[in-house]
Amino acid sequence: MSNADTWETVKSELREVSLLYGAQASLAWDQQCYMPPGAAALRGEQMALLSRLVHERLTSAKLGRALEDLDGHVDDATTQRAVELLRKDYDRTVKLPADLVERRARAGATGFDAWIRAKEASDFAIFAPHLQEHLDLAKETAAAIDPDGHPLQVLMDGFDPGVSIEALRTAFSRLQTGLSELIEAAGDAEDRTLGGTWPTDGQLAMHRKVAERLGYDFDTGRMDLAEHPFTISLGHQDVRITTHVYDDDLLGGLGGTVHETGHALYEQGLPRALFGTGLDQAASFGLHESQSRFWENAIGRSRPFFAWMKPLLDSTFPGHPATVDSLYRAANRIQPGPNRVKADEVTYNLHIIVRVELELALFEDRLTIADLRDAWNDRYQRYLGVTPADDAEGVLQDVHWSGGSFAYFQSYTLGNLYAAAFHAVLREQMPDLDARVAKGDFAPILGWLRENVHQHGRSLDGTDRVKAVVGQRDYVEDLLAYLWGRHGALYGLTRPR
Amino acid sequence: MSNADTWETVKSELREVSLLYGAQASLAWDQQCYMPPGAAALRGEQMALLSRLVHERLTSAKLGRALEDLDGHVDDATTQRAVELLRKDYDRTVKLPADLVERRARAGATGFDAWIRAKEASDFAIFAPHLQEHLDLAKETAAAIDPDGHPLQVLMDGFDPGVSIEALRTAFSRLQTGLSELIEAAGDAEDRTLGGTWPTDGQLAMHRKVAERLGYDFDTGRMDLAEHPFTISLGHQDVRITTHVYDDDLLGGLGGTVHETGHALYEQGLPRALFGTGLDQAASFGLHESQSRFWENAIGRSRPFFAWMKPLLDSTFPGHPATVDSLYRAANRIQPGPNRVKADEVTYNLHIIVRVELELALFEDRLTIADLRDAWNDRYQRYLGVTPADDAEGVLQDVHWSGGSFAYFQSYTLGNLYAAAFHAVLREQMPDLDARVAKGDFAPILGWLRENVHQHGRSLDGTDRVKAVVGQRDYVEDLLAYLWGRHGALYGLTRPR
Repeated sequence: MSNADTWETVKSELREVSLLYGAQASLAWDQQCYMPPGAAALRGEQMALLSRLVHERLTSAKLGRALEDLDGHVDDATTQRAVELLRKDYDRTVKLPADLVERRARAGATGFDAWIRAKEASDFAIFAPHLQEHLDLAKETAAAIDPDGHPLQVLMDGFDPGVSIEALRTAFSRLQTGLSELIEAAGDAEDRTLGGTWPTDGQLAMHRKVAERLGYDFDTGRMDLAEHPFTISLGHQDVRITTHVYDDDLLGGLGGTVHETGHALYEQGLPRALFGTGLDQAASFGLHESQSRFWENAIGRSRPFFAWMKPLLDSTFPGHPATVDSLYRAANRIQPGPNRVKADEVTYNLHIIVRVELELALFEDRLTIADLRDAWNDRYQRYLGVTPADDAEGVLQDVHWSGGSFAYFQSYTLGNLYAAAFHAVLREQMPDLDARVAKGDFAPILGWLRENVHQHGRSLDGTDRVKAVVGQRDYVEDLLAYLWGRHGALYGLTRPR
Repeated sequence: MSNADTWETVKSELREVSLLYGAQASLAWDQQCYMPPGAAALRGEQMALLSRLVHERLTSAKLGRALEDLDGHVDDATTQRAVELLRKDYDRTVKLPADLVERRARAGATGFDAWIRAKEASDFAIFAPHLQEHLDLAKETAAAIDPDGHPLQVLMDGFDPGVSIEALRTAFSRLQTGLSELIEAAGDAEDRTLGGTWPTDGQLAMHRKVAERLGYDFDTGRMDLAEHPFTISLGHQDVRITTHVYDDDLLGGLGGTVHETGHALYEQGLPRALFGTGLDQAASFGLHESQSRFWENAIGRSRPFFAWMKPLLDSTFPGHPATVDSLYRAANRIQPGPNRVKADEVTYNLHIIVRVELELALFEDRLTIADLRDAWNDRYQRYLGVTPADDAEGVLQDVHWSGGSFAYFQSYTLGNLYAAAFHAVLREQMPDLDARVAKGDFAPILGWLRENVHQHGRSLDGTDRVKAVVGQRDYVEDLLAYLWGRHGALYGLTRPR
């Protein structure tokens, strides 16, 4: 078989894998949006089977041989990059026994169900045995891939290739110091919460209009309610957003929607023409988060954004008392609290640092599941000065661990770091950025991201893609400078030298 | 391998097939309830792939050999029945080339999309080429299974085994004559429509309460809106209803919900313990319809049913003007119209007879797709005295052909015939039936169906299951006697001798 034919065969196989992933994503979406509770075990079996079918294809000896034959023997750089990445993925995947993959899928489904029940009862004990199972399975996974590596590093390489745990410790430590300075300087600010009651239907209708205006294509997407907001791709033509709205917190839900819209815009901008090569995918989780956090924070919490939104808000909720300034100030309060999703963008990173530290402790066997809740509450007290009122508000708040997803949280703060760098560079290149946002003219901003990030898919790793766009920059400094800029002006603070 | 081991292997394989069917059903449900329009082609690819994976398993030489080895060599009658049915299914399936199965799945998805567009534009021409493709594929399918058989008979054997087209022609002819007598006797009755405006949300909330009271388990099910109501099983623990409500027609939507609830009660009552044997499935489509039509008509259009429902209606729509009698009379008008789903239970069967005759003509090459709309309108004028205002109201009204589903419609009227026989026997065995319905005490009725029908799954063919319950009866006479009984009393008519 010629190399060209071999490559066609590989692509055909990978397209099938993508279709199976899409079916799996459909089941996962349904599970979190609409599935009846009594179907949880059945759904676990269905997802486990699809996982196994995907795994069989991704670990077939035939695929391995084809990739080996192709590596170094293809004509163009794009195909060579694709083959290299596919070989890397193949090598990781082939080391995982099929039964481990299936056990993880099954544990993911039943664990999610247990997490829902635990959260409703606000009782960590209901979920703890499932989390233990997830942790054991994750360690087993890491050991299967690289028995000598740091287990969390091994897992993280699957999400954020090129990011080392040591670099992360350093960056997060500098960031924590910088953020603490800002939070301390802000002190006990006056209460800037917006208050009011905002009916669900109106919020959802408004969210849809916002997402559409930002550039989200509803012809190949939709928006639903879910316990924990997420974006999921069932394929390039079916990228779905979910959100959660709060009757008493207009901005909490809105921020979530803008965040998920940012993810979805990335997915909808990926290079469809590369379907089947693997290069049509996102470059890394951190880069994915940079897209959601850029829209959520740099744009979605800016004063010009609320200036644009005000008429839409007025027509949706006639007579509401919010002004552009009260919205802007409420969206940018610095107010440490127990909830990550509802956190302001300054303290948000401390929520992440807590989780990453706890994951490190769990994977380095310095912490047990039995002690996790106490360790969680202890760190919240130390870093954020708050103690969750109960488990639902504390250790049970996130969906990630419910399905056994570890080594993921760092990507949120990586995303904030990358987004800060993108924002700094975009502002240099587009001096009228604020004026455009105030007009709701988001197309050129999306166009810039499409051109610099989205259309490239996985042609570079996430870290290299950022460097290709922004050059050599200090992202921690970019983020701190941006936060001091916005919040310093609002709170009347000066950054210490 | 021992026979017991072989049987375990077969069951394990069949359980996987069931899980894949469940994933497919999830995609199909999503497609009709929530999928974004731009995802239609992608969804077609996903469903085609799952179809192929199912087909590969159901036609594997290994399965064929295992079934051959087992047939006649198993210990118990249940397993022997399972093996026989599985061999029969295998023989039918193995004759279908994989590419034909995939082409049908793909045509089903794109055809559904085209049908939606055609119906919106009320233009049969948009859908006609897809219907032609469906017809060609259906003929190809029938010829692959049995090149010498009547193509519609061959297809019908897959839905209603044991029902011959000749028997159907005879029964339908007698039924048509009998129904025409009743319709003629009823003449131009006064307008008994209910009128009024019934907001969607209230109707849906009420429908959920009705379904739950009838015995539908929402822990393993849910109810959504869809263009055309349907029930779909994603597995024994996940049986979903969809419905369609009309702001100006309370009873149209309600009848649909009770109908789908009847289907779902059957699915929820099937023998889960037989998962993987094939005997855990419904016995035939006609028997399935007997369950939906029994609840929809015998129970759901009865005076005691409305007596029970009245307080629920009052609390849902305070101040509405309907009385038990006006509800009962509106639900039992005889009023020929163009729409099958909204038809009364007398003329309903004429809608079916039109469709079955047209399918016979199409499959016997006495009619072309180009002439279908005219043939449709002509028959509606002759049998029902009405002409559809446009294509949407006429030939495009049903979802069935949109996905290439032929040889299905007869099962509705078979269901009415079986239901009439069940009803006659149940009334003998449960003299206080009406009193129970009036109290909302549906559990003993469901219990009777569970005991006599549901729990047996596919242990007998549908026709034999009915006979086992009711003995030798004339179902056409049962149906006519029931209809004359209810409608004769309401309209003050006497049946001619």
